[in-house]
Amino acid sequence: MAASVDEYLKAAVEVAKKASEVINDALHKEKLITTKDGMSDLVTETDQQVEKLIIGTLKERFPTHSFIGEESVAAGEKCVFTDNPTWIIDPIDGTTNFIHRYPYFAVSIGLAINKELAVGVVYNVAMNELYTAVKGKGAFLNGKKIQTTKEKEIGKALVITELGSNREKTRLDILMRNYRRLAEEPNAVHSIRLQGSAACNICTVANGVADAYYEFGIHCWDIAAGILILTEAGGVATNLEGGPCDIMSRFVMAASTKELASAVCQQLERIDCPSD
Amino acid sequence: MAASVDEYLKAAVEVAKKASEVINDALHKEKLITTKDGMSDLVTETDQQVEKLIIGTLKERFPTHSFIGEESVAAGEKCVFTDNPTWIIDPIDGTTNFIHRYPYFAVSIGLAINKELAVGVVYNVAMNELYTAVKGKGAFLNGKKIQTTKEKEIGKALVITELGSNREKTRLDILMRNYRRLAEEPNAVHSIRLQGSAACNICTVANGVADAYYEFGIHCWDIAAGILILTEAGGVATNLEGGPCDIMSRFVMAASTKELASAVCQQLERIDCPSD
Repeated sequence: MAASVDEYLKAAVEVAKKASEVINDALHKEKLITTKDGMSDLVTETDQQVEKLIIGTLKERFPTHSFIGEESVAAGEKCVFTDNPTWIIDPIDGTTNFIHRYPYFAVSIGLAINKELAVGVVYNVAMNELYTAVKGKGAFLNGKKIQTTKEKEIGKALVITELGSNREKTRLDILMRNYRRLAEEPNAVHSIRLQGSAACNICTVANGVADAYYEFGIHCWDIAAGILILTEAGGVATNLEGGPCDIMSRFVMAASTKELASAVCQQLERIDCPSD
Repeated sequence: MAASVDEYLKAAVEVAKKASEVINDALHKEKLITTKDGMSDLVTETDQQVEKLIIGTLKERFPTHSFIGEESVAAGEKCVFTDNPTWIIDPIDGTTNFIHRYPYFAVSIGLAINKELAVGVVYNVAMNELYTAVKGKGAFLNGKKIQTTKEKEIGKALVITELGSNREKTRLDILMRNYRRLAEEPNAVHSIRLQGSAACNICTVANGVADAYYEFGIHCWDIAAGILILTEAGGVATNLEGGPCDIMSRFVMAASTKELASAVCQQLERIDCPSD
């Protein structure tokens, strides 16, 4: 008999906590840093070690399940998303922050069943903030129910985005134009924050501390868990046209309300990325 | 007989803690928000209330001292900086963050004697991080000695800057060009963070969590306390040419090393602001 979602959540929380111990141990040690695609896409031994720990633990417990992990894909595994229960894992979301001890990096573990997100766990290790959600049962921060703001006006919104690690000229051109449109009247937001972790960014919106977050170029493992936490907290995750976010599409607009998501999206030019 | 710097530090810490109680009480209440210069320069009743508390307390204890406070200057007082012991105060640095409960806002209290910084206290209220420094005696976070990184290479640096509240077209033009130069090769930094509080930004560099922070348009009350904390932690605060930072000049480059400060400054175009 299949396990219940509550068991899946319990397993995800347990392994996220184990992972956080490994990450905390490594935090103050000298790190061996290598780069992936570009100069700014950094990875450490700890990312790889933690992904093995998480996938190994969950695979032993749920041997029929499928897995998509950031470091496994980086090492050449295909990113295959089927109806089979699929764990979508980023061992350390925000590796650059982890390297600098900047306190926004997180273990992100999502579970999709029939391609629908069912369980989400994001653990901000440095801040000891454990965000959890099960489909239909609300979102929680360290066991306390959270909800998004009800902000609809772009002019009152605190918006998060990122520079990202891909620094190609054409990408930066659009990125800067998007940023500029949100900085200047007539659509100036309260302010813009960059904190360096997609998973933490979405949870910051889920927790009502920012009103919106968008980014082009993110991957499914950066956002899968976070999106369930956000929607269970009352927020929305959309594509650029206002429809539901496809986690494989390399874009997310995460916002407190549909109105705000739409208002911010209207200011954005698309940056094309091949889908996951 | 004049009090010692240790007494000044003790008084500043005590009043910063009292201020943090008022701020914490107000944090979850509905806030009356007004704007100063521009649409994005926000102020709350709490800013004004906390400044009165801090100045009132210190004035009673040190009646011959002078005071420069953000809200007093906003209310029309002159910003006069003499050799007399002068307390330089921002009751809530990062008011936009305070309004959104984004956890980077701080009480900033600096004391200059003969125009030299002698005492600095920055209290990040949400994170309960108390940064303190006395000239010549090192810098501390919650009583534990801190130091900057030794980073000299721009390509390995985590750099903080801000969008700021002044959104004039010419200012944004330069701001975006500066930002872009740091994002792109050949001088691409590891990444850029925006966290919304000058005082917290400088302390993040002092604590070795970021390597550099720069901003045009800041005021003396945003940076006075932080600069002493930074330099006592082994960092440097410079002007755009690499000379010592003049706290009245509306610009600061705060970095872990002189070499990094210089490398970042070389990428920056000046944004002119009238001095404090």
